Amino acid sequence: MGDKEFYMKLALQLAEAVVGQTSPNPAVGCVVAKNGKVIGMGAHLKAGEAHAEVNALKQAGDEAEGADLYVTLEPCSHTGKTPPCADLIIEKKIKRVYIAGLDPNPMVAGNGVVKLQNAGIRVEHGICEQQAKELNKYYYHFMKTRKPFVTLKTAVTFDGKTAASSGDSKWITSEQSRLDVHHYRHRHDAILTGINTVIHDNPHLTTRLPQGGKNPIRIVLDTYLKIPLEANLLNDKETPTIIVCGTQASQEKLIAIEKKGARVKKMPSDTIELDDLLVWLGEENFLSVFVEGGGSVHSSFVEAGCFQEIVMYMAPKLINDKKSVQAFAGIPKQWMKEAASLRFTSVEQIGPDIKITAVPLEREGI
Amino acid sequence: MGDKEFYMKLALQLAEAVVGQTSPNPAVGCVVAKNGKVIGMGAHLKAGEAHAEVNALKQAGDEAEGADLYVTLEPCSHTGKTPPCADLIIEKKIKRVYIAGLDPNPMVAGNGVVKLQNAGIRVEHGICEQQAKELNKYYYHFMKTRKPFVTLKTAVTFDGKTAASSGDSKWITSEQSRLDVHHYRHRHDAILTGINTVIHDNPHLTTRLPQGGKNPIRIVLDTYLKIPLEANLLNDKETPTIIVCGTQASQEKLIAIEKKGARVKKMPSDTIELDDLLVWLGEENFLSVFVEGGGSVHSSFVEAGCFQEIVMYMAPKLINDKKSVQAFAGIPKQWMKEAASLRFTSVEQIGPDIKITAVPLEREGI
Repeated sequence: MGDKEFYMKLALQLAEAVVGQTSPNPAVGCVVAKNGKVIGMGAHLKAGEAHAEVNALKQAGDEAEGADLYVTLEPCSHTGKTPPCADLIIEKKIKRVYIAGLDPNPMVAGNGVVKLQNAGIRVEHGICEQQAKELNKYYYHFMKTRKPFVTLKTAVTFDGKTAASSGDSKWITSEQSRLDVHHYRHRHDAILTGINTVIHDNPHLTTRLPQGGKNPIRIVLDTYLKIPLEANLLNDKETPTIIVCGTQASQEKLIAIEKKGARVKKMPSDTIELDDLLVWLGEENFLSVFVEGGGSVHSSFVEAGCFQEIVMYMAPKLINDKKSVQAFAGIPKQWMKEAASLRFTSVEQIGPDIKITAVPLEREGI
Repeated sequence: MGDKEFYMKLALQLAEAVVGQTSPNPAVGCVVAKNGKVIGMGAHLKAGEAHAEVNALKQAGDEAEGADLYVTLEPCSHTGKTPPCADLIIEKKIKRVYIAGLDPNPMVAGNGVVKLQNAGIRVEHGICEQQAKELNKYYYHFMKTRKPFVTLKTAVTFDGKTAASSGDSKWITSEQSRLDVHHYRHRHDAILTGINTVIHDNPHLTTRLPQGGKNPIRIVLDTYLKIPLEANLLNDKETPTIIVCGTQASQEKLIAIEKKGARVKKMPSDTIELDDLLVWLGEENFLSVFVEGGGSVHSSFVEAGCFQEIVMYMAPKLINDKKSVQAFAGIPKQWMKEAASLRFTSVEQIGPDIKITAVPLEREGI
């Protein structure tokens, strides 16, 4: 591993540490180095606050002159909530800038590099680029499509079931796996489930990591507004809740829900068209949605082609029950070739369970 | 790794190379070493032929005097089809004998060790014992229970289905996974399937490894002898076939099948009781059975608790079909706690697929 990779991996670690807390901004890390010594390190901690470069350069102080700067995302060239980082880098007389990935944000998209180069700074990009893109995959996906990145999560037995015939599902997976799920909640802007899950489990859908964590905004697909007004989601005040319904939902119930403090989004159709919903969520600046639904919600996302990743926790249990609840219960297909093609991206053991992640085969590269 | 482990691992490699070709004998490897040099190596190649120790000592010749011998299974002390290996070791004046696992065969079971010790040879056992037991797990299981070790194999989509609604299943998994299956066929004494698979797929159930491989004997569960007389299994002459039926099967059909050269085993009950069948297969010296059935055959084995390992090949495909064929389709269960408890023993990627193996939680240690 060369020096460039060494420092960039350090910057990526800084970025990794803040994934989930910077949205709608990407997670970015920065390292300033000179004569083989680190003289500044920083990450962007929260939208609206200082960018990674600002934090790292502040630490470097006057030492920054003539130093090299490593940053996981192209420095910005425009004034947003904070001034352009490219200007600061020029002002601090940095000698060379190493970048992992260019910023897909059309307001940057190469302009940061040009600005630095015009000031005589040597710029190189593409160092550990894949890792940087993976780290901010929600951000890259959003910038490309203006829709949130959708992660489907499911917990199944070895034979692919999410519950016994009676609906009982407590607990399929281990405590370790259930804890891992909370990392995903922390990292996503929104968590989405179906009305059946709300009625059946009355969940809170909050992030409960040992150290706390960030709560995603809760979204319920509830075409006819069947949600009980006493549901935890409408009463616990933990984090905002959005109830999504269709045109046929009762206006009276809608008002009652809004009185509880939740937001109701009525889609312009009888049923909820998922792609329309994702477009709207994009407009609302949701970069990522974590779907924790049952078989029918998951099926809808798969049928609509509206998912970017599937996370499956598999427990070493065999329910062996022909009537048990299926994780994906879509419309019947005649042929195996009608199956959605995926690519397994990781498989690991978590406690006694196995966690498998997969992406649609089309999503090669981001 | 000490010297003992070094040589024992070498002996285990020799044994590993012959797994599948020695049944009903175990796979055994042997290394003879003296002054830090290997002077003899051998494996037991085939039942009825020379044991591993004989082959290794033959290579060592007169050099064997004062040498150390490493063998993966306790040397035999009784005269079977060949004379006792313990006698040969004593005769060749071996100084020390290192053994991985004691022989569970009641005719040996420690007697080999005693015989060697009585002759003044220093004996140590338990070196790499777990690995040796895993290697011969069929043999250990058989010696303990007098019933064959049952491996259930299934190939599923990411959502746990073995076929689309129409029954179409060609092909769920990749060529690499399908090749891997043939290694299992080679290693098992018998391959077992249900009559539905025979009628639907008309398979040959032979081993087709690039280098050939050993065909297991084919067993079909066919309670009412519905097998078509033109089925490949009754006509291809590749390897013997046993059709298992219940008391109500037609005697006429039974005779017609036997005329084709297959053996028919009529169980003493209307339906086929799997445990009875396994007892009978044990009497017939089958140490292992590879079950490649559909959902109902697999379910029966699971319901009856008649399996020692499950091998699942999972393809990166999502059929998302609520009516598709399930890998395990047993009787409905009310509660998740009624699920059979397993332990995942391995997970690996094979081409684009994932292969997961699991054992019943009870089978801790062999």
